[in-house]
Amino acid sequence: MDGIAFVKGHGTANDFVLLPDPDGELDLTPSLVRSLCDRRTGIGADGVLRVVRSQAEPAAAFLADQAAWFMDYRNADGTTSETCGNGLRVFARYLLQSGLAEAGELSIGTRAGVVRAWVAGRDDDITVDMGASVISGGSAATFPGNGGLSFEGLQVSMGNPHLVCVTTTRIDELDLTAGPLVDQDSFPDGANIEFVNVIGARHARMRVHERGVGETLSCGSGACAVAAALAVRDEVTDGDYVVDVPGGRLRVTLDTTSGHLLLSGPAVLVAEGTWWAN
Amino acid sequence: MDGIAFVKGHGTANDFVLLPDPDGELDLTPSLVRSLCDRRTGIGADGVLRVVRSQAEPAAAFLADQAAWFMDYRNADGTTSETCGNGLRVFARYLLQSGLAEAGELSIGTRAGVVRAWVAGRDDDITVDMGASVISGGSAATFPGNGGLSFEGLQVSMGNPHLVCVTTTRIDELDLTAGPLVDQDSFPDGANIEFVNVIGARHARMRVHERGVGETLSCGSGACAVAAALAVRDEVTDGDYVVDVPGGRLRVTLDTTSGHLLLSGPAVLVAEGTWWAN
Repeated sequence: MDGIAFVKGHGTANDFVLLPDPDGELDLTPSLVRSLCDRRTGIGADGVLRVVRSQAEPAAAFLADQAAWFMDYRNADGTTSETCGNGLRVFARYLLQSGLAEAGELSIGTRAGVVRAWVAGRDDDITVDMGASVISGGSAATFPGNGGLSFEGLQVSMGNPHLVCVTTTRIDELDLTAGPLVDQDSFPDGANIEFVNVIGARHARMRVHERGVGETLSCGSGACAVAAALAVRDEVTDGDYVVDVPGGRLRVTLDTTSGHLLLSGPAVLVAEGTWWAN
Repeated sequence: MDGIAFVKGHGTANDFVLLPDPDGELDLTPSLVRSLCDRRTGIGADGVLRVVRSQAEPAAAFLADQAAWFMDYRNADGTTSETCGNGLRVFARYLLQSGLAEAGELSIGTRAGVVRAWVAGRDDDITVDMGASVISGGSAATFPGNGGLSFEGLQVSMGNPHLVCVTTTRIDELDLTAGPLVDQDSFPDGANIEFVNVIGARHARMRVHERGVGETLSCGSGACAVAAALAVRDEVTDGDYVVDVPGGRLRVTLDTTSGHLLLSGPAVLVAEGTWWAN
């Protein structure tokens, strides 16, 4: 029976189906992505990472000199996204584990440009350069189901839009099943929303609601946005932040040399197989 | 990299990881089942179906003359169950598709004894003999979160315990996330609870909360329990009931010859692969 080869992996329980497609032969439609990501009738995942040679992907061919591989990231609902921090780590793990890249520094093509990653060895955390944050002022979000409570936050772009809401309300008591309502002028294309409790010096916990997906157990760019917002609040420009997400622990380093945020955390491949698309 | 071979399949969106283990070599611990069924860090499923020759399974060797294959069914939480109607269809589909059985009638060993199934052809619905229902009186269940509403129901055993609650409350408005509270005398080991709206002649819709799992999109023995309860209510002893579950449509036939309930519905295998247990 014919089928589509896949690998499943996750970074802090943010999970992905990887589709090895070196020569760009796969016609990955939104409908196919939705079927694949369905958790009961498909494989199930928060998103899909198509693994294609940059030179084989028309939209990425201009990156081919800098990055041999392009990460074609799709959300579970079939839409595309610019970048995905946990996805990048899982993508880097796949390149390393399948022998398509060697340990050390590697470059990955994405819709947000070329991204650097560092992989020391097989079982080590993977670090990804998530670029610079851009902070553009305050906004607010409402989730129906929390007594109409509105959460004030900071707009942070990490290539994709975030609203970071630091709050003293216990985040594990929030109901994030319905909503959110965000300001259309601040976020014409929607936003990922982080709810944050500070629990120690340079240590925070967060929950995240990703646009197009719903609440997830982790979001790498969200953790970076949180670190950027906390650095403004703490008036610091270097050092690390530890950000605990429901799916595990991430570390964000403020890199003074580049002005970028470096995201470190685990990434693991759990299965490989063949999917028989219906 | 070593790993465990798996197949994933579903029956009306009730999904299973099948583990081909013909010679009974797999040490399938509850912890392994839970890891495998985790929807983000594992493969993800409502349960596991280990496929083992009856003669290779000490607990099933006495069935080997009647049923070559034994379905070792485990819930996602690692516990065992007597039987599983959707699982049996998926198990039968696997036997057929992998050439371990031929189309027509086949016999499958389970913890509830030998079960007959009928498979006409590759793309046809599969029918499973679910045995006789045993109705033992009324009981009630409460789900916190529905204003303390208590649901009266009929206790139906299909090998496993069910409480069938026919109600005029719209079942799609029920909150089944917390609970349930069932009568300990009626159900010392807990119960699967079906909430039912009658929507036409011999046609009902149901939602189901499975013990050890939570709400699922379908439950085959639950659909049979519902048909048995409706037959009492309708004072009939033959014919079919159509039972719509969130994951699709099932048909239950009251077989006057055997006094058994026959469950028919789709079953499909969606993927195969290797899982690298962590």
